[in-house]
Amino acid sequence: MPRLHEVGEGEVLRRLIAARGPWSGVVVGPGDDAAVLAPSAGHQLVATVDAFVEGRHFVAGLGTPGDHGARLAAASLSDLAAMAARPRWALLSMGLSPDHDLAALLAFQAGVRDALAPFGAGIVGGNLSAVEGAEWFDLTLLGEAPAGQAWTRAGTRPGDWIAVTGHPGRAGAGLRVARQITGAAGAPEWETLLASWLRPTPRVTLALALAGSVGTRAAIDISDGLALDLSRLCEASGVGATLEHWPPDPLLERAAAALGTTHDALRFGPSDDYELILALSHDRLEDLGRAAAAHGVPVAFVGRVTGEPGRISVDGAPLGPSGFDHFRS
Amino acid sequence: MPRLHEVGEGEVLRRLIAARGPWSGVVVGPGDDAAVLAPSAGHQLVATVDAFVEGRHFVAGLGTPGDHGARLAAASLSDLAAMAARPRWALLSMGLSPDHDLAALLAFQAGVRDALAPFGAGIVGGNLSAVEGAEWFDLTLLGEAPAGQAWTRAGTRPGDWIAVTGHPGRAGAGLRVARQITGAAGAPEWETLLASWLRPTPRVTLALALAGSVGTRAAIDISDGLALDLSRLCEASGVGATLEHWPPDPLLERAAAALGTTHDALRFGPSDDYELILALSHDRLEDLGRAAAAHGVPVAFVGRVTGEPGRISVDGAPLGPSGFDHFRS
Repeated sequence: MPRLHEVGEGEVLRRLIAARGPWSGVVVGPGDDAAVLAPSAGHQLVATVDAFVEGRHFVAGLGTPGDHGARLAAASLSDLAAMAARPRWALLSMGLSPDHDLAALLAFQAGVRDALAPFGAGIVGGNLSAVEGAEWFDLTLLGEAPAGQAWTRAGTRPGDWIAVTGHPGRAGAGLRVARQITGAAGAPEWETLLASWLRPTPRVTLALALAGSVGTRAAIDISDGLALDLSRLCEASGVGATLEHWPPDPLLERAAAALGTTHDALRFGPSDDYELILALSHDRLEDLGRAAAAHGVPVAFVGRVTGEPGRISVDGAPLGPSGFDHFRS
Repeated sequence: MPRLHEVGEGEVLRRLIAARGPWSGVVVGPGDDAAVLAPSAGHQLVATVDAFVEGRHFVAGLGTPGDHGARLAAASLSDLAAMAARPRWALLSMGLSPDHDLAALLAFQAGVRDALAPFGAGIVGGNLSAVEGAEWFDLTLLGEAPAGQAWTRAGTRPGDWIAVTGHPGRAGAGLRVARQITGAAGAPEWETLLASWLRPTPRVTLALALAGSVGTRAAIDISDGLALDLSRLCEASGVGATLEHWPPDPLLERAAAALGTTHDALRFGPSDDYELILALSHDRLEDLGRAAAAHGVPVAFVGRVTGEPGRISVDGAPLGPSGFDHFRS
């Protein structure tokens, strides 16, 4: 396939737009000065943006362009899941090398498109820029929630339960294994861990199933690491948290041994899992259990909310925020 | 002021969010997983995204960080003006060097904020990424238009008049003068031309004044160059255009002489003017004249729409599209 500079911006845009597929609620789609969208009556708009930068959020040798596009979509979908919002419309802005392969670009966009499609969402606009250094992809995702029903990070109270979906820490561990252990990429023994990083499952369906329930008092997605994201939820709600008796994750134990670190450093440290932390009223735990079982989502009830603002402990020992800092890492 | 890596991502975010100022229609503002926004009943959402890349869309020596932020906002505001939409909410995603100065970043954001504020719009969310090469800023702007009233590029018919706001070509000429003529930046004789590039005035107020009128059949903003953007409007509407008797612009004549090019190459060629091309029903020209006078916007009626698809002529001579191509320039 040709490279972008061989085709020219106009034709690249035409190819991208032609491959975007159908959308719902779109009055004017890609190809005008802006997209015109028809919001649902009685709903509020929920908006988020996430960027993936080459070498940081995606690595050429690890996964296909389609995987990278799907991961970018997962990052934004996970933000909407944390607000219990239904994904609807996306804008994809890209900074690309003129030497970028057109087929690879179309594959990346298809990765985004196919990750959005199951939720009825689509790409309705975007922007192309040429860059000389690291390439980047910036996805704005718009969703909707019935007025007043979006979850936030604030609102949980002492005594509430803390639940997490999936297996926090696996994404970060998978990336470290792929980077630090020769031959890990492609090795069957590391496949599940690597897939946690490469092909995360944002918890949109579970969130929407719980959206009507009054039991969810606060939520956040794990995009930087469990400790850091839990501390953000606690800060927004003015509470603390105590985690107890959470069984170790065998995959993290194996990775910790191979990487020369600890299980808890992987579980609580930097990791873009795109899982959810939910704080729940203690009398509504069954709602989550039922919804999780119905949708096949692993859920662990890992602890309780406390009245000590900012204090988070694991089996009695204090836990510091230790997630990812873009400007220090 | 410290650099970003000295402060850390959390504190940078806190400083950015604290400086964002008030917004309207915001249920959950910056600092959660996503922003929650309250759309206006009976309106459609109008969404656009624009990126500014260091060295291409802004140059360190030319203008302040505040100017660069205001120009980025102008790019998106101009897209909404071309749709006759009222600007409301913006998401600012940034790829920054860890060495970026915090004061300069806050000044850039203030430039965006202050450019949005007169229209009642504000920054409600965003994202920070670290980059090693060229920095970039990506702005998603959401606006609203009464249902069914957004302008598009399609809909003009043979016999309609073509009007342009401002002085197309001046922005591109100003940038070329600043880059190619030693001492031009800061010289009084080039000040107006340079300001056209550095501090454009998106035509939001004029567009909103005309929004209710049935006379505007199609619109596009000039962000790549008059010839290219006019050809896009003609393509979307399936028409041609003939421009006639448009007096030369004395500032472009002077720039053409200094740059060794022609007046028309500057007027019709690559230029991010953020002006509007409007196609108007011939019996409603006075609406535009009155609105333009009321809001102090220069407007020229430069030609007519024809029934020859794709053919654009200036005083009888054919005009080829000659705007900006990101991947070939």
